[in-house]
Amino acid sequence: MRATVMRNKKLVVADISVPAPGPGEVLVKTLACGICGSDLHALKYAERLVEGARRAGGAFIMDLNRDVVMGHEFCAEIVDFGPNTQRRLKAGTRICSMPVLVRPTGVETVGYSNENPGGYGEFMRLSEALLLQVPNGLTTERAALTEPMAVGLHAVEKARLQKNDAPLVIGCGPVGLSVIASLKLKGVHPIVAADFSPKRRQLAEQVGADVVVDPIQKSPYESWAQMAAFKNPADAPPRAPWMAGPALRPAVIFECVGVPGMIEGVMSSAPPNARVMVVGVCMERDHIEPMYGINKELNLQFVLGYSGDEFTTTLHNIAEGKINSDPLVTGKVGVEGVAKAFEDLASPEQHAKILVEPWRS
Amino acid sequence: MRATVMRNKKLVVADISVPAPGPGEVLVKTLACGICGSDLHALKYAERLVEGARRAGGAFIMDLNRDVVMGHEFCAEIVDFGPNTQRRLKAGTRICSMPVLVRPTGVETVGYSNENPGGYGEFMRLSEALLLQVPNGLTTERAALTEPMAVGLHAVEKARLQKNDAPLVIGCGPVGLSVIASLKLKGVHPIVAADFSPKRRQLAEQVGADVVVDPIQKSPYESWAQMAAFKNPADAPPRAPWMAGPALRPAVIFECVGVPGMIEGVMSSAPPNARVMVVGVCMERDHIEPMYGINKELNLQFVLGYSGDEFTTTLHNIAEGKINSDPLVTGKVGVEGVAKAFEDLASPEQHAKILVEPWRS
Repeated sequence: MRATVMRNKKLVVADISVPAPGPGEVLVKTLACGICGSDLHALKYAERLVEGARRAGGAFIMDLNRDVVMGHEFCAEIVDFGPNTQRRLKAGTRICSMPVLVRPTGVETVGYSNENPGGYGEFMRLSEALLLQVPNGLTTERAALTEPMAVGLHAVEKARLQKNDAPLVIGCGPVGLSVIASLKLKGVHPIVAADFSPKRRQLAEQVGADVVVDPIQKSPYESWAQMAAFKNPADAPPRAPWMAGPALRPAVIFECVGVPGMIEGVMSSAPPNARVMVVGVCMERDHIEPMYGINKELNLQFVLGYSGDEFTTTLHNIAEGKINSDPLVTGKVGVEGVAKAFEDLASPEQHAKILVEPWRS
Repeated sequence: MRATVMRNKKLVVADISVPAPGPGEVLVKTLACGICGSDLHALKYAERLVEGARRAGGAFIMDLNRDVVMGHEFCAEIVDFGPNTQRRLKAGTRICSMPVLVRPTGVETVGYSNENPGGYGEFMRLSEALLLQVPNGLTTERAALTEPMAVGLHAVEKARLQKNDAPLVIGCGPVGLSVIASLKLKGVHPIVAADFSPKRRQLAEQVGADVVVDPIQKSPYESWAQMAAFKNPADAPPRAPWMAGPALRPAVIFECVGVPGMIEGVMSSAPPNARVMVVGVCMERDHIEPMYGINKELNLQFVLGYSGDEFTTTLHNIAEGKINSDPLVTGKVGVEGVAKAFEDLASPEQHAKILVEPWRS
């Protein structure tokens, strides 16, 4: 089969073997697969990632001397069945799945593995038990956004939002946009979101941000504070008489950038007692100033991925039009276009999410 | 009055002016005042602390070219009253107080201030509204432990412990011991506590630890895991069939050391989904590996101090014998002995808490 392969730290198009579905597994044809920021990072910092995964127990367990087919945000079509399968869904059915294989020996990743090719190739093998049928009428393109949109739902669920909580989203790449869409779905307002890129601020508004901020123009924390004041001061909890300015609702800050310095930056600027959801995936060792956390009694919740239920819910949310993920898709490529797409995604002005359609000529 | 003064980054005994109580304030005579690890740090890293406080909004706002009388863990006796005081408590009454002055312009610290001398001097001024009468029969020595023991209560309250949570306390200095005592008070068991010092492990057992660990001999996390297994496997939530070993209760780890590297160390060793309570006060910039937090979805809650209610509750808990803080006090000195006591406290084998009695000759 044709696939975009990570080989010697480059993306090349190659003909490789079609994976054989094992017991309880199915062979699927990839219809569309989003390019994730983690994939860009995995290409650029492959050794560091593998080393980091060994240290910190992550998913990036790969032999970099062998081929890897990335791609973990996909919609696919059932082609064939391995042994011991139930075949409740027939060949030809469009499906989504979490990008993992559930095997008696444990979970294996699809897309960051030498054994299990991901969605940048024409075929994948998946666990039958994890397949979700794409509802009639839902386009393949939208269904392929289930995975990245589930990330936002999970982050918002983990934030255990309470009445009065006022969110601030730092970074409006795909992860930030996914968080914004889920906040809107939960009816949490106002949603304040910050990004240096005009294009991404525009996308943020399209998926549900109430206020967008250019950090060059104005501090996102200042914008947040203006929006987070209790409209009715009687709703605010009692506080010391010398506290200046209006009473503010509790801050829940979603860090959706994931580069070194971001966590410390948020800790430095966050208001007292803020909860910081670390959604951006910073794969490098980083600095923090613990005193920022201590003096303000901050809470940092690191999050990763989503549960099976959250993944399923997200597919249905998209199908039912409850979240608007359409603005995210800014381009489509075939396997030959993936290397260029990786370069293009470095510029936030041009793209948010590019879909790979491996069968596209 | 006589006081141990921080002057030119040294501790010297000096005669200085008795502070004048302002409106709503009282003059008190210091009966006993504990030496806190933060005071040791403040002496050693004075400039860095002041600079850090400026950056991170901390309490250490001092002019180091002027005298500072430290000491914020005290029991004292009312001597005189400033203007506009209620005088509900009479002169001669023994009191405890949070180490702050509440003024119309805001809160000022007592003990990390050029203006408000702390408990290493014979007299202090305090806010009348914050005074708590020491119950009859409670010794001055025990009452002086209210402040450090309130720190532990606050940390345990902030942990929002739930049924099944299994705690691990890293570091059994005064902060760790205070946390252990509060865990015992809450009936949370088993309490696993780790420290390199045999003396401190012994103190940990005396205040309530069920299991103490020497990290040289055995990983605290391994000891914790042995103790944290569900006794009745039917109580454990369902989990994937390939998960090895016994099901473990949720981990709540109290980091009570507060030196660089500790937070990352705990993040590296913590089990998945652990909540980490950062109680130790690390006053230096530090490294973390975000991927440890991300892969395990860790939660970090930084904590500081205590509320007024927690402080009051702690005084009563000590008075009613609900927490055992007696083992903490390992020495007493007069103002001349403070400098030497600071040196002695560097050795965990000799001391946990030394009380300063400024009137001791």
